[in-house]
Amino acid sequence: MRESNLGLVLRAVRENAPCSRADVAAVTGLTKATVSSLVADLMAHGLVRETGAAPERRVGRPGVMLALDGRRIAAVGLEVNVDYLTVVAVDLMERELLSRQVPFDAGAAGDSSRSAAARDDSRSAAARAEPRSAAARPDPRSAAARPDPRSAAARAEPATERLAALVRETLADPLLSGRTVLGISVAVPGLVDSPAGVVTDAPNLRWSGFPLRDRLRALLDAAGLGALPLLVDNDANLGAVAEYRSGHLAHTPDLVYLTGEVGIGAGVLVNGRPLRGSRGFGGEIGHIPLARRPRCGCGRYGCLEALAGVQAIVRRTVPDLVPAGPVTGSLVATAVAATVERARAGDADVLHALSRAGGWLGRGVATVVNLLNPRAVLLGGYFVPLAPWLLPPCTAELDAHVIAPDRGGCQVAASTLGLTAAARGGAAALVDALDTGRLPLPPPLPPTTAGTTP
Amino acid sequence: MRESNLGLVLRAVRENAPCSRADVAAVTGLTKATVSSLVADLMAHGLVRETGAAPERRVGRPGVMLALDGRRIAAVGLEVNVDYLTVVAVDLMERELLSRQVPFDAGAAGDSSRSAAARDDSRSAAARAEPRSAAARPDPRSAAARPDPRSAAARAEPATERLAALVRETLADPLLSGRTVLGISVAVPGLVDSPAGVVTDAPNLRWSGFPLRDRLRALLDAAGLGALPLLVDNDANLGAVAEYRSGHLAHTPDLVYLTGEVGIGAGVLVNGRPLRGSRGFGGEIGHIPLARRPRCGCGRYGCLEALAGVQAIVRRTVPDLVPAGPVTGSLVATAVAATVERARAGDADVLHALSRAGGWLGRGVATVVNLLNPRAVLLGGYFVPLAPWLLPPCTAELDAHVIAPDRGGCQVAASTLGLTAAARGGAAALVDALDTGRLPLPPPLPPTTAGTTP
Repeated sequence: MRESNLGLVLRAVRENAPCSRADVAAVTGLTKATVSSLVADLMAHGLVRETGAAPERRVGRPGVMLALDGRRIAAVGLEVNVDYLTVVAVDLMERELLSRQVPFDAGAAGDSSRSAAARDDSRSAAARAEPRSAAARPDPRSAAARPDPRSAAARAEPATERLAALVRETLADPLLSGRTVLGISVAVPGLVDSPAGVVTDAPNLRWSGFPLRDRLRALLDAAGLGALPLLVDNDANLGAVAEYRSGHLAHTPDLVYLTGEVGIGAGVLVNGRPLRGSRGFGGEIGHIPLARRPRCGCGRYGCLEALAGVQAIVRRTVPDLVPAGPVTGSLVATAVAATVERARAGDADVLHALSRAGGWLGRGVATVVNLLNPRAVLLGGYFVPLAPWLLPPCTAELDAHVIAPDRGGCQVAASTLGLTAAARGGAAALVDALDTGRLPLPPPLPPTTAGTTP
Repeated sequence: MRESNLGLVLRAVRENAPCSRADVAAVTGLTKATVSSLVADLMAHGLVRETGAAPERRVGRPGVMLALDGRRIAAVGLEVNVDYLTVVAVDLMERELLSRQVPFDAGAAGDSSRSAAARDDSRSAAARAEPRSAAARPDPRSAAARPDPRSAAARAEPATERLAALVRETLADPLLSGRTVLGISVAVPGLVDSPAGVVTDAPNLRWSGFPLRDRLRALLDAAGLGALPLLVDNDANLGAVAEYRSGHLAHTPDLVYLTGEVGIGAGVLVNGRPLRGSRGFGGEIGHIPLARRPRCGCGRYGCLEALAGVQAIVRRTVPDLVPAGPVTGSLVATAVAATVERARAGDADVLHALSRAGGWLGRGVATVVNLLNPRAVLLGGYFVPLAPWLLPPCTAELDAHVIAPDRGGCQVAASTLGLTAAARGGAAALVDALDTGRLPLPPPLPPTTAGTTP
């Protein structure tokens, strides 16, 4: 009860700062005595500070004003994708403290038999379940109930080790010095059993049934960081959270965020909360069937991401730069940059390919809009630099296929958060967990520093 | 406050009957004195009754037990569709008091220039907005901001008059004698602005921008029934409510109900509440684009309902019984019954057509399941008699196209509520509005009859 009331007061200060204790009591419905006691607690823990007297314009006796204290904590969000790892740290106000992106070929890592032909073959769902490499490392958790988790674990292990190293480097970064880290979140492009911390299936990473949270905790334990709360979630869900909390259409309650990577995922917010479905597997827009071909990385045919995902796009726009087989690693960013360059130069083939991809994207988004009637759809990731060419055909198909007048009031726009959206959203989700009492307060400050005015 | 506490007590009795006043206090967190006062009120209004002493097995002093009083109120749900009108009345426990279905060609009504060729032509979106008939009646509400609401209003008027007559007949029915009617709900297959009571667009009825609630109220006013609360909502939303409250998978919180009529609509429940979207236009699964053809009643191409709606099905299964142009009126039920007969007899063409339609349905449902990860999808309306032939290809396509393992735990089944689902759901929504304090209590009973034990 006290935990949730602490969160209530924290949220009231967040939304109303600068505000007095009396303001907080009025907003929360708590008594002034209770508010004073809770504020004292929050100040002792370094989350709220006094900012001085109320401004002149207020009537009555000037009260001491409260605001969030941005100096005490940090929340760290990671994202793993087929071609990069991202880390973002934010403070209590969700202001960015640091942001790094590391090229990393997570899809290929741990796969020693890598060749274009072999990898292409491996993309059928049936082949994915087979052991693929004599060099595959044994899975330390071979009890997991998947057909053959060894190769999946072997592929996931290098990325997990790199994530653990990124956490260690980030926590040692001078930009976070003196801060208590609330927790670590990891965004993954695929089906995630978030309560269990398990990546159920991430086709583009070729991970399945991988206990990412437990494995990351084991690696952090070795560095004395095993007690940090760890959150694993789908990248699109966390991207949607980031848009809701700090995007240019922040606080739009019915919002859809689309990841624009090799895969396409949807994070759906209904009344400001992620729509997860009965097992947490909602938002799989990338695999809605739109046509009879081409083959998708998931083994099916005609999925949206096989028609409008970044890999499908660059294979048509810059075929000279893209070898056969999956497009991963630093090649993705290179190929997208070359696509932008050629589109700017007016290359007819490139413009035609982008127009087709944008049209398929519009048909996919039309499905979401017909079903969910969101207020906004935001295109993220690599769709952002490609948006000038994708958006016009996308919105034309939307207008053609949405049955509600005026697209049901839906606005479609490029995200302003770029490739850091999912990591930022994960960090924001940790701050939200503190606000709602699902994460404990950081330890109290030493008595001499608590609640001082800067 | 008292209204919402009355609802709280009513729900507690609903969920726990037979129960004592102390049980209600324990469940609601209200004091026993408050509960006693609220129960007295509910008894005075005829909604709760005393059932005698507690059974022997209970410990302590036997208390007087409470239950809902099913004798006092009725809630009336109507549905309008292209080939029938339905009325269902339920009591406070949502037990059916009466149910009637009236054949009615709502799609053709009011259109005096009716011929197969002319109607087929009229189904383009552009043509829909044009005045089509010299005999079209002038719209009493010509201020409505639609391109030409006259013809749409003319088409909607006969159905509205028939609905008003149905209400009058139902309220005079001896099966409802002595009951106070809580309100009337109307389910419509199309986009409904429920707060305004306006049918925004119902392509298969060819209604658009029609102020159904105001028009129905005007007609009921003339019969002295103008004060009844009127609710207008989408048929699929109300079908989903019916499934949630009284279907064979009742209380499944993440549930999708599909209407199986000439149109296909989806009612989506998330955590037991309808997902409406930002303007109330969610659930339009019928118009998600799955292919490049055939032409749909909405004017677009390749929509799910043009591939798997009842009209698309019977045009292939019983072409000898179905003339060119839209299939409406009593022909729909006749053609479905003939389809069932021929499928039972093993007609290869019929079985092939049903298999194809079921497959398209599965691709449409796969999209919903990938996006929303529901626990159950229920096929309603005419899909129920066709389910033995539609379900196997539907689930096969689902298994092929849903990316989550085990279809994300989703069960697909035929509804047990048949063609009355939407009307029942509307009646249930009125009872729910009473439970949640959004509808006022019925007037108090005369003092002599209040709270007597039957």
